Amino acid sequence: MNRQQLIDQIRLKKTFLCVGLDTDINKIPTHLLNQPNPVLAFNKQIIDATHDLCIAYKINTAFYECRGIKGWQTMIDTLNYIPKNIFTIADAKRGDIGNTATMYAQAFFDKQASGMSFDAVTVAPYMGADSVKPFLAFANKWTILLALTSNESGKNFQLIKNEDGFLYQQVITQANQWATAEQLMYVVGATRGQAFEAIRKIAPHHFLLVPGVGEQGGSLADVCKYGLNADCGLIVNSSRGIIYAGADENFANAARNEALKIQQQMERELGRIFD
Amino acid sequence: MNRQQLIDQIRLKKTFLCVGLDTDINKIPTHLLNQPNPVLAFNKQIIDATHDLCIAYKINTAFYECRGIKGWQTMIDTLNYIPKNIFTIADAKRGDIGNTATMYAQAFFDKQASGMSFDAVTVAPYMGADSVKPFLAFANKWTILLALTSNESGKNFQLIKNEDGFLYQQVITQANQWATAEQLMYVVGATRGQAFEAIRKIAPHHFLLVPGVGEQGGSLADVCKYGLNADCGLIVNSSRGIIYAGADENFANAARNEALKIQQQMERELGRIFD
Repeated sequence: MNRQQLIDQIRLKKTFLCVGLDTDINKIPTHLLNQPNPVLAFNKQIIDATHDLCIAYKINTAFYECRGIKGWQTMIDTLNYIPKNIFTIADAKRGDIGNTATMYAQAFFDKQASGMSFDAVTVAPYMGADSVKPFLAFANKWTILLALTSNESGKNFQLIKNEDGFLYQQVITQANQWATAEQLMYVVGATRGQAFEAIRKIAPHHFLLVPGVGEQGGSLADVCKYGLNADCGLIVNSSRGIIYAGADENFANAARNEALKIQQQMERELGRIFD
Repeated sequence: MNRQQLIDQIRLKKTFLCVGLDTDINKIPTHLLNQPNPVLAFNKQIIDATHDLCIAYKINTAFYECRGIKGWQTMIDTLNYIPKNIFTIADAKRGDIGNTATMYAQAFFDKQASGMSFDAVTVAPYMGADSVKPFLAFANKWTILLALTSNESGKNFQLIKNEDGFLYQQVITQANQWATAEQLMYVVGATRGQAFEAIRKIAPHHFLLVPGVGEQGGSLADVCKYGLNADCGLIVNSSRGIIYAGADENFANAARNEALKIQQQMERELGRIFD
């Protein structure tokens, strides 16, 4: 999905919500444990209940890898179940040198090689340009680079500062030279409300993937106040707050209700920027 | 494997070589392509030919993930084939917030959950303490944190400097407070010869995992000159230089010869520090 198609979906569905499929078999309703694949059954019901309220799903690879082969197969099956007009993100936070980065890109972008073809993958910047550019070599795919993350200890290194600014700002400034906003997004945590203003000065056009709304305490209003641009420019993720909203047979309805609340707030915010 | 057991293996085998199983199906001898699982057949022969010359194998997860389910199964089968007295490293460079980091740790440390139990996993520091500590919560397992990597663009961010030193030095200084040298190692590229001197000032006792000897141009002599400590303190990796030394039916012998050359140089270096 390219940038214009993504913007079109946001306009059409009046939402910029991403639902995070961080599905932990220990947290899903117990009645699903009788299913042949409880996690897949859970994901399918969540997708059925929310796909008209979101424009993206984000699959957190850790939650699937931790279950080995079975988990990896569930990740593939979940990805294949997501409707084609929805943006898909492998939240994998990979990062390694050139030839290895190409292999990671194949894992998430090349269906023939790996069985999976996401629209986007999250990438860590620590190893620099040659760990990111191999992902950018894939046409019609997106790289979402970690900039300022939502977790408390994100500040340990991301807020190290010198005369060129904070580390996270230098990540954005350098990465802006590696690709355009047609192919590159940044991760900025919703818990970093005020930083969005500074980030929009150096990345006015880029889409930002924003985790941390909901369970992690970030404010959607603040994110919108400082982060929205003329094309929306935000994909705001909620995982636990939506998918674990209910714990019984009605969990999918409960998830829908939570997603709907966020979508309605997003529709109001979008009313400020779209006709 | 704990620190003393690792040192004992180094003393016994007179080597601190790690062989990197970065096995690319497009680079292995063509006669193996008739095998049911060419990559596994290749890895087994490499392990058979080199296991007395090295103390560790490093499996680069990207090379397996890029082949989907089949690749993941090959990673499991390869790990299970490695003799028990050899240190095993999942070179996965993972890094994510707390609950997700725990899942990644399970993927590589918890055989019951994932089918794999490596001794160590490589972890990226960008997201700070709470992305690293969940790995350290696993008893008798090692976290190997990226500090100063071997690739050219490692300098993009790792050499950002302020009054507290370079970013990579601040990573080491902070991480030293999260765990001891019994559980934590650092990745330092062999291409960074002189930096070993500075790193030994802030991490005198830690083992360092050193990629970049061989194909990437790092000098083993320089690494030893500045990096060896009284317990050895180094695990030096070579991947392509060993595993692709030959391209025909004798590839395993060719790999052995390359590993032997490195082992012999290491034996001389160890003579300087061990009785």
